[in-house]
Amino acid sequence: MQIAIPLFDRVTALDAIGPYEVLSRLPGAEVLFVAAEPGPKRTDTGALALTAERGLGEVLKPEIVVVPGGRGTRDQPHEELVAWIQQAHQTSRYTTSVCTGALLLGAAGILDGLRATTHWLFFDQLRALGAEPTLERVVEQGKVITAAGVSSGIDMALRLAQLIAGDDVAQAVQLSIEYDPQPPFDAGSPDKAPEPIVQLVRQLGATAG
Amino acid sequence: MQIAIPLFDRVTALDAIGPYEVLSRLPGAEVLFVAAEPGPKRTDTGALALTAERGLGEVLKPEIVVVPGGRGTRDQPHEELVAWIQQAHQTSRYTTSVCTGALLLGAAGILDGLRATTHWLFFDQLRALGAEPTLERVVEQGKVITAAGVSSGIDMALRLAQLIAGDDVAQAVQLSIEYDPQPPFDAGSPDKAPEPIVQLVRQLGATAG
Repeated sequence: MQIAIPLFDRVTALDAIGPYEVLSRLPGAEVLFVAAEPGPKRTDTGALALTAERGLGEVLKPEIVVVPGGRGTRDQPHEELVAWIQQAHQTSRYTTSVCTGALLLGAAGILDGLRATTHWLFFDQLRALGAEPTLERVVEQGKVITAAGVSSGIDMALRLAQLIAGDDVAQAVQLSIEYDPQPPFDAGSPDKAPEPIVQLVRQLGATAG
Repeated sequence: MQIAIPLFDRVTALDAIGPYEVLSRLPGAEVLFVAAEPGPKRTDTGALALTAERGLGEVLKPEIVVVPGGRGTRDQPHEELVAWIQQAHQTSRYTTSVCTGALLLGAAGILDGLRATTHWLFFDQLRALGAEPTLERVVEQGKVITAAGVSSGIDMALRLAQLIAGDDVAQAVQLSIEYDPQPPFDAGSPDKAPEPIVQLVRQLGATAG
């Protein structure tokens, strides 16, 4: 089962690594990091490089597509990647995104008329691409699944694990990565965080997604 | 504020990337991926390379040390890394680990007599290194903080964010990465997962940590 995760410069690392860490543990899974130009891709902070091993043209019919987000979704052209997403979507079992990866699904026309989510700071951009933004963590619309900001890809991938491999395997993967979250605050969503914190993040803005 | 995250072959990616994604967002943070030999390090699944930019000798007094885990903690010698951890610990503000990264802190003598945690499959190995294993997600013992398996590094890093930068910044980071976990099951810990799932993961064994 091929699972393709496109990378690009200024990707947000956790958007890609969360789903990778879950999906790579499924029986028969082969996770492939792909890019228009293979090689190391610098993450949005500049501190790290993730290596894309394959060109887009080498992985044309993945069963699952997971498109991560990051500043790089917006500060560079993505014609080749968007065309690849459109084509891969025709034969994929699931086409998914994390965070502002949804903007690339939207650019590919895949979210037109669908409920979808992205990082909460980017709902206007998502709406402009024809989607109906919704403040849910994981939004399923048939085979199109979008997840909210950054860390939400872990939850989405566990749901994918359940859909693909069943409850037992999904729980075994969750236990393997010990995903028993206990954050020190309940501030992970704009409808839960204190309003001054929401305003602060809004001001700091677009670096987030 | 230098935050050093050592990498090595067969590291578990999320162990490193979870804390990186949180800590890199702190004001003044400089996250440095270091290794005995700089360059790309292949993760435990083989599907990905993370690049260590600096040699251990280039980053001698980081304020925070975060040691990730993975199969590579156990299938190769780590004399140079363990000696580096010992030395960095003398001047660090916090010395921390995720998952079986705790075994390297243990090898450095840092956990002797301390309560600590690691991936739940590796409690015996942790005990053999002089620590008192405890099934908590994040264990604080003065400046030594250990986290449980894989995904727990996110929670630990948010706690570090709180300790270093205060409640407001920690909550803003949590909101930025939208860490509002909603896993489809409550199976992320051996005391919560159904017993047959715990047995299954125990049999699949040591690939996890």
